[in-house]
Amino acid sequence: MSTDLMPNRFRPGEVDLPKREAELIARRDAVLGSSYRLQYRKPVHFVRGEGMWLYDPDDRAYLDFYNNVPSLGHCHQEVNAAMAEQAGRISANTRYLEPRLVDYAERLVATFPKEINRVVFTCTGSESNDLALRIARLASGNEGVIVSAYAYHGTSAAVAAVSPNLGDAVKLSSNVRVVCLPGPEGVPETQAADFFEAQVKAAILDLKRRGIGVAALLVDSIFSSDGVWIDPPGFIAKGVAAVREAGGLLIADEVQPGFGRTGAHMWGFERHGVVPDLVTLGKPMGNGFPIGAVVGRRAPMDRFGATARYSNTFAGNTVGIATADAVLTILQRDRIPQNALAMGERLRAGVDALAQRHQAIRAVRHAGLFFGIDMGLDTAPPEERRALALDVVNTMRDDGVLISTTGANEDTLKVRPPLVCQAEHVDLFLATFERTLDRVAVNSRSPTSRNAARTRR
Amino acid sequence: MSTDLMPNRFRPGEVDLPKREAELIARRDAVLGSSYRLQYRKPVHFVRGEGMWLYDPDDRAYLDFYNNVPSLGHCHQEVNAAMAEQAGRISANTRYLEPRLVDYAERLVATFPKEINRVVFTCTGSESNDLALRIARLASGNEGVIVSAYAYHGTSAAVAAVSPNLGDAVKLSSNVRVVCLPGPEGVPETQAADFFEAQVKAAILDLKRRGIGVAALLVDSIFSSDGVWIDPPGFIAKGVAAVREAGGLLIADEVQPGFGRTGAHMWGFERHGVVPDLVTLGKPMGNGFPIGAVVGRRAPMDRFGATARYSNTFAGNTVGIATADAVLTILQRDRIPQNALAMGERLRAGVDALAQRHQAIRAVRHAGLFFGIDMGLDTAPPEERRALALDVVNTMRDDGVLISTTGANEDTLKVRPPLVCQAEHVDLFLATFERTLDRVAVNSRSPTSRNAARTRR
Repeated sequence: MSTDLMPNRFRPGEVDLPKREAELIARRDAVLGSSYRLQYRKPVHFVRGEGMWLYDPDDRAYLDFYNNVPSLGHCHQEVNAAMAEQAGRISANTRYLEPRLVDYAERLVATFPKEINRVVFTCTGSESNDLALRIARLASGNEGVIVSAYAYHGTSAAVAAVSPNLGDAVKLSSNVRVVCLPGPEGVPETQAADFFEAQVKAAILDLKRRGIGVAALLVDSIFSSDGVWIDPPGFIAKGVAAVREAGGLLIADEVQPGFGRTGAHMWGFERHGVVPDLVTLGKPMGNGFPIGAVVGRRAPMDRFGATARYSNTFAGNTVGIATADAVLTILQRDRIPQNALAMGERLRAGVDALAQRHQAIRAVRHAGLFFGIDMGLDTAPPEERRALALDVVNTMRDDGVLISTTGANEDTLKVRPPLVCQAEHVDLFLATFERTLDRVAVNSRSPTSRNAARTRR
Repeated sequence: MSTDLMPNRFRPGEVDLPKREAELIARRDAVLGSSYRLQYRKPVHFVRGEGMWLYDPDDRAYLDFYNNVPSLGHCHQEVNAAMAEQAGRISANTRYLEPRLVDYAERLVATFPKEINRVVFTCTGSESNDLALRIARLASGNEGVIVSAYAYHGTSAAVAAVSPNLGDAVKLSSNVRVVCLPGPEGVPETQAADFFEAQVKAAILDLKRRGIGVAALLVDSIFSSDGVWIDPPGFIAKGVAAVREAGGLLIADEVQPGFGRTGAHMWGFERHGVVPDLVTLGKPMGNGFPIGAVVGRRAPMDRFGATARYSNTFAGNTVGIATADAVLTILQRDRIPQNALAMGERLRAGVDALAQRHQAIRAVRHAGLFFGIDMGLDTAPPEERRALALDVVNTMRDDGVLISTTGANEDTLKVRPPLVCQAEHVDLFLATFERTLDRVAVNSRSPTSRNAARTRR
């Protein structure tokens, strides 16, 4: 595992900066808490956004292939108009009757399997996961939580304590157990489900031996922070069954895969053929407006609501609801998930073709418009692979295309453009990626084809 | 303590509802989690807001003397214009350089004592308190937290666990200790500081005997959920000193008193002559837009930032920043805290005059535009006093004025209008309050003056 919690970040003194950015960073450092990190070796500075593009103060355009919050593109006029119109009318809270809240809640749950028919609104994905853990713990009567080895589920104290991705600086809860994923362990796809089930069962047993029951298996169904380990579809199902048999719930963290990101489905868990007990939503729900939700089955929701009061001042306010409603309308009307599927296939074909010519691409995984592209030879030391990934990301940044890294070793390129991306953007990304590989990985060209093994994992 | 966690709420079957509201409630109950509560015996239904007013579907106006989020009034055009303008330009995140974030952070910390000069943004007051606890625990190396007897600090798991106000349904952390406040215990003002210090020292000793150090004293400086126990100014200072001597921090929860609510000061802690280590912000910061912050001294912020990464996707996004910036501009330009001070004095004089004629008013406490008005005779049983307060609140609701209840026995009227309220609104509130007292408390008239004892506590 990388000991640097965020390798793709600015480190003072590493690069020379223009006076304008150096001065802004100095002012920033003097007033913001030092827990903030700037992305990229040379931080980006944006003052305008539009669709797939972000612009710096000199009006230089950067193609955004990284931000999964503005799924419909930056500064979407129709979404913003809905937000502004509602802000001019009323921003009621959930203790008052207001029809738009109910209308949207009905529309939202209609996108889920019928068992999932209750919703509680929050303001962020972290709040969603925090609340889901509270519900699961109360409903199960248990405290234990099982997560993947490099999971990240958010920033609140309770959620950070089940996020091994945050590293040693953030203490894990004594009630959390981590399980390995089949992909990073090199387990063949045919054995993936059994491997995951065995991992989960071992975690359950270990919890029980310490007198801790299982409250939940909490998973991001595309395992983005683990390095986008999505295949084979269904590999989590047996592990889910084991958790339920032990009295625990399945919480699907859809903050990253949800709202059509995976293309073929509105929700990432659908790829795995399971129906969660609780589903947590966030990032793209309001295309940037702070809104999230916990959606779930009636039984755990009722068990929680019977005794606990949950009142979130801003959550479910009518402005956020109107904004999220506009996002959902556009997602469905403009068939955005279908676009994500088609553009994902185009991007996959392009990356696979590049992988034929560049040994630097070790493996490719994707669902819809969420890609993990492993960099560096299998035989290379982890530090070298990570350095290569960082070089690629920062060379592309300098060339006007935004991506970053993920995974236990942070040697996986994390590529997740807004879902409105078109063929011209995919092609521009691919051209820039190829130019970068030519420049960064000059020694990794290989005439031999490795793609069969490569794209398998 | 009231066993009903939210007495002023809708209970199905208690009152007859019009068909329109009954149908909306049925749809709502079928899709929202049952942890939601509707306010008032007969829920309110609003579809439009403007300044001090909320309007139902029949365009009947209700005077808002309760909502402390839209401090500048509902649907403030200038604030909304700033939000919409920024949403059309860019909504950058904090990993990118963007000058407005820094500009606003500088303006915000300039409103604090000079020792408090660092800020981290969040989306809600709950996130602010959750993060402040994480910082205090890491910076102090301790886990214990001291709060007031009926404190409420938010909804995340970690914060709910230090919120005794949530009642038995939400388990308190084994690391939290509650302290009594001098006011509700009937302690004379001259002894209040010593009493509070003794309470805090006993809590510290109890924590230490169990091997738990003190991370923080976490207080809302107007103790709103305890029943608005604000006096005498400075009564918390000796307790704060004891916490610091034990290695703990002072976290001032300014979600309710902050941004000028107390009139004489921008921040509630200033009334008490203390400078906190960390200050948490929320509710009125964006006049309804979900934004909050932790503001604090450099040392604990640096200690946290040195090892922990805190990345909150939506927090500090440029749209929230532009909105909060407009709010701060208007607060300062239009001298809103000064208005809160003046209107608070006018309201206090009116309530005191009513208290001369109505035994139903037991005591009045206020700072700026945050009022606690205790209902019912000292000699009346708690249930009777609570029922009286509920009758007043719901009679006023039917008469078109919104307030609610607070305090351990929920017999205190909680009155906190938007800070832009004018003399005409104060006078309308007072006229409605008087009419309500005449109607509800017909048996509580008294020709004798009790106001000296009454207004003391």
